[in-house]
Parts: sequence; structure tokens; C-alpha cells
Amino acid sequence: MKNVHMSLEGGHTLALECLLANGCDDLNATAIADRMIQAEGDLCHSHGLFRLPWYASGVKSGRANGKARPKVEQLAPAVIRVDGDGGFAPLGQEVGHQPLVDCARKNGIAALAFVNMFHIAAMWPEVEKLAMDGLCALACTASYPYVAPAGGIKALYGTNPIGFAWPRPDGPPLVFDQASSSMARGEIQIAARDGHDVPETAGIGPDGEATTDPNVVLAGAQLGFGGYKGASLAMMVELLAGPLIGEFLSVEALEDDGGAGGPPKGGELMLALDPTRFGDADGFLARGEKLFTEILAQDGTRLPGARRFVHREKTGASGFEIPESLHETILGLM
Amino acid sequence: MKNVHMSLEGGHTLALECLLANGCDDLNATAIADRMIQAEGDLCHSHGLFRLPWYASGVKSGRANGKARPKVEQLAPAVIRVDGDGGFAPLGQEVGHQPLVDCARKNGIAALAFVNMFHIAAMWPEVEKLAMDGLCALACTASYPYVAPAGGIKALYGTNPIGFAWPRPDGPPLVFDQASSSMARGEIQIAARDGHDVPETAGIGPDGEATTDPNVVLAGAQLGFGGYKGASLAMMVELLAGPLIGEFLSVEALEDDGGAGGPPKGGELMLALDPTRFGDADGFLARGEKLFTEILAQDGTRLPGARRFVHREKTGASGFEIPESLHETILGLM
Repeated sequence: MKNVHMSLEGGHTLALECLLANGCDDLNATAIADRMIQAEGDLCHSHGLFRLPWYASGVKSGRANGKARPKVEQLAPAVIRVDGDGGFAPLGQEVGHQPLVDCARKNGIAALAFVNMFHIAAMWPEVEKLAMDGLCALACTASYPYVAPAGGIKALYGTNPIGFAWPRPDGPPLVFDQASSSMARGEIQIAARDGHDVPETAGIGPDGEATTDPNVVLAGAQLGFGGYKGASLAMMVELLAGPLIGEFLSVEALEDDGGAGGPPKGGELMLALDPTRFGDADGFLARGEKLFTEILAQDGTRLPGARRFVHREKTGASGFEIPESLHETILGLM
Repeated sequence: MKNVHMSLEGGHTLALECLLANGCDDLNATAIADRMIQAEGDLCHSHGLFRLPWYASGVKSGRANGKARPKVEQLAPAVIRVDGDGGFAPLGQEVGHQPLVDCARKNGIAALAFVNMFHIAAMWPEVEKLAMDGLCALACTASYPYVAPAGGIKALYGTNPIGFAWPRPDGPPLVFDQASSSMARGEIQIAARDGHDVPETAGIGPDGEATTDPNVVLAGAQLGFGGYKGASLAMMVELLAGPLIGEFLSVEALEDDGGAGGPPKGGELMLALDPTRFGDADGFLARGEKLFTEILAQDGTRLPGARRFVHREKTGASGFEIPESLHETILGLM
């Protein structure tokens, strides 16, 4: 498989032009391209330009609003809602960031419910950004039915990631963003594209039988990580990012798509906690560092997210690569 | 192995008398016995009388305060702290419940930080109680270093459970309370006591090698469920129930114990969300039920916590059993 090399700036321009050509206005296209290239810069390809055709077709078909103007509403003293106006998540997340920071600082903890938007992006950018502002952050979102419930064989839950970030005194925060499924959907799609096997823990076929073929998993159901416990987390995320905030379950998002194959519409819940309001304003950072020092004192360990930060240091100069086939697909959309 | 049968009332009296004989006052002993027998009533033995010798020795040694008077403090508009006064968790949890409910209803979301208490109980009773009051609840707590970080072999994290509850319109809420480790500590201890093997995913020996011997795991390190993802959750729980609220990491709790072998002292973080304040007050219950209906429509599935509720229906009349050896140990403590 041949790759095409590009700079971050070049990738950003490519994404921007593709989104503009397919019906996004400048505000929305810029927010989406920023997020996508942030992912490529961290070499997190499954949330980079790989997603661009999906975004572009979502706007072109008229399903997603490429000219969205998200609105911020205060639902309760510590609860904010951002209505995404039917657009993609990145702009809504930009708009919601500062109100959530202010609300968390005022109350000690605050929740932000994102509704009425297409939310196929990774969540680490938004939790990382909150932690850069000194907050501890949690986020979760549902998608389409990809994961079987514990004991079942039919896909019902999204891969339903949980994102978490914790501020650090020097350098970037501690961040993870992990699917409740054994593998991320994008990883299985990439394995299918590239002809690689997936582990047996990744999922089951339509008949419920074990398989290592990513195409059979994509036709069947993914499994929660660690079995029933991952499935419990996926169920929790369905409730928090769906019924709690008046948004779709993953099965409802698929019904709403009506077979168009576009990105899932739905919700995301974010929680921000201000550690200076929990009783140890002077000590919490050092206590966190003590834990990280203990982790890294053991051979073979690393902190979640650390690899992304290492990549980020380099890609500004070195750029990144995408498969030639993806590059051609993107050019064909413009 | 012979068992001793007893009624819930009989078990409660046994726990109460043992705790009183070892230095608890009536208020503290009653709160602890209530929790312990609630666990036995749900046939959740690893949090029942099995823990009584540990509680009793903790009080008798003077390490835990058997006459604690927990104090409630408001740290921020949506953040409450309960100082457990060095006692066991159940009384502090009783004292903190209503203030957390009131604070969540007022602000839409609220956090409760439990500090300065011994917190070895399961967390499903407190999240279940919040959901009985119509709230969605999350809880987490650390303990002693039992679980290795991802890639490491030395125990660093507690088993660090996450509890979750969601209100239901008819009958008991949806509740789960699951360790971030592959197995609960109590389950491995019981396997060791009863001479059973544990799965290879449960943990590793002191040398980092795979094993199915529970005693080797107890001497080595447990593993996160699903590998590194469970370990990430365990790390998140360390931060939320430790540094965030000014409480011990699991390693610090062990240092504090100083080799006495008593229960771990530390913190617990609870979050309560009022779903009527998140924008779909009229719909959230029915939307949740839609998800549960979809889950149960598949063969082989059940809702987390459902077995406990089935047991609870029966044990009021049928009672429960504990091993004769445990019964003798308890009698020997009085």
C-alpha cells in the first residue's frame, strides 16, 4: 500500500477545502479540520482524514448541517446544554468549552450535555483542553449499535468511549479516551481495509461464533473489553449520553440515519471537576504526580496518552502520511 | 465445608454484638451491621459477614474509630465533603445521603467527597439508594495496592470499583458495582480459602508470570479487566478518590496501615445527577426502559444487579449461610 506524505498545514488545507466543497461554511469546516489534523498530528489516524469522506457525505446529503450555529443554554446552576444545531461536534465543543470551565469553577463540578449534533470525533481533544485549564474532565458518547450486550450476540451499544483527563503541573495533562468495546470501530475498519486479522476478543460473527476476521466482526457484533464489565460500561454510556440528556440511544441513531450510512447523530455528556474546590487545592497536583511517578518506576509502563504527546512533538516538522487510496477518495470528493 | 444457616435478623444481631464487643458504639455498629446484612441478603457474601473479623480487628486495634461522628461540609455550591471522623464508611454514607440528594436536585449535578474513613464496603448500596430517590449515581473508591499498572508487574492500584445506578419507574433501579480489576479482591480471597483456581486473567505472580493459583495472585498482583483499559480505569479511580479529594492513594493507605493488616483508610467520590434537570424530565425514564427492553429481548442477557434483587426477594424468608469456620472466628471475637 502506497502512502501520501503531507504536512499538518497541507492536511488542514485538504480537509478544509473538501468540507467547503461539500457544503460546510468556513466556521464549521475550520472547526472540523482543526480536530482532524489535531488527530493526525498525534498520529491517531482513525480520527484523522480517514473520517473525512464520512463527514463530507454527511454534509453533502443534507443530513448534517454544515452551517450550524450551536446554542448554549443553562439548564440548572451546574448543568449546561449545547444544542449543536444539527452540525458536527467540533464547533459545538469549541462553543461549549468556556461556559463549562466557568460553570465548573463556580460550582466545583458542572455537566455539559451536547445534543443534536453528529459526534464522530475522538473525545480526548476536549477533555485535554479542560485539563489544560486546570480541571479534571470526563466525557462519554454513544454512536451506532456495534457492541453486543453481555450474554447477547446482536449489536446494541455503540463502542461508547469514556474520555478522562487530569491536569499536570508541567507539560501536557494525563489523558485517556478508550472505547468500552475491546477495539475501537475505526481500528477494526482499518484492519478490514488493510487485510489484517483482529484478536478473538474483538467481536463475534452474526451467528455469535468467535472470529478473527474484521469483516465478520463488522457484520456481527463487537464485544465489550474484558467481557461483561466492558458491556456494563457501554450500557452506562448509552444512558448518560442518551436518555439522561434527551438524546438518541445508539439503536435510535441508526434508525434516524435511515440506512444512509452517514455519521451518527446523538449526544455527548461531559463532566468537569475543579480540583481546587474539593478540599486539597494546594496538594492535588503533587499527589497526582506521586501516582504517576509510582507508575513510571515500573519497567514496561507508560502513561496513557503519552505516545500521542511524543508524536505531537515531531509531526509539526515531519508531517504525516495517509494511504494513497484515501487521498484519491478525498480528491474525488472535491 | 460445613455451613451455618441463619436468618437476616440473626446475622444482624451477630454482627452487631461482635462490633459492640470490639469497641463500636451503637450508632456505628448498627450502620455497619445494616450494610453487611444488606449484602448477605443479596447473597453478596464477599461484602457480608466475611468482612466482620476485619472490621472488628480494625476497631479493636484502635485504628478505626468505633465511635465516629461524621461531619458534613459544603466545599462549593455543588460539592459536599463528609469527614468520616476515622470511622467505617457505612455511617458516613448514611449521614451524607440526604445532603447529596438535596445538592444534586438544586444544582442538577453534585459531588460528595468522603474522606477520613475506612471504606471497605461495596458501593452498590449507596448508588442504589440515590437511584431510589430518582437520581443517576456514580461512585468510586480506592483501597490497597492490589492491581498492577498496564505493562507493570507490581501491585499499585486498588481493585478500584466503579458503581453506577439509574432509576427505573417500577421496581428497583439498574445498579452495577464492578471492580476495575478482572476479579474482586474478596472473590480471590474466597477462592484461596476454598481451594479453587482463578482464571489466568485474574492476576500474575510476584515474578510477573501467569498463574491460576489464587494464593500466588494474592502474593503478586491482580490485573485490570480487559488488560490495559481496566488498568486505565483503576488509575482514574485512584485520582478521583485520592488526590482530587485530598485522600490517600492505595499505596499511601497501605503505608498508613503500617503492616497492621487492617482495612484501608481513604476516600470515596460520589456523583449524583438529577435527570429532571438535563432537558428531558418527562422522557428520560421511558428512554432508559427502551434500552433495557432491547437488552432483555436478546437470549442470554440479564440486567446488572438483577440477580441481587431476585436473591433479596427470597432471603428475608429463607435466610443465608456462612462457613462454619467463619462463624467460629466471629464467635471467638466476642
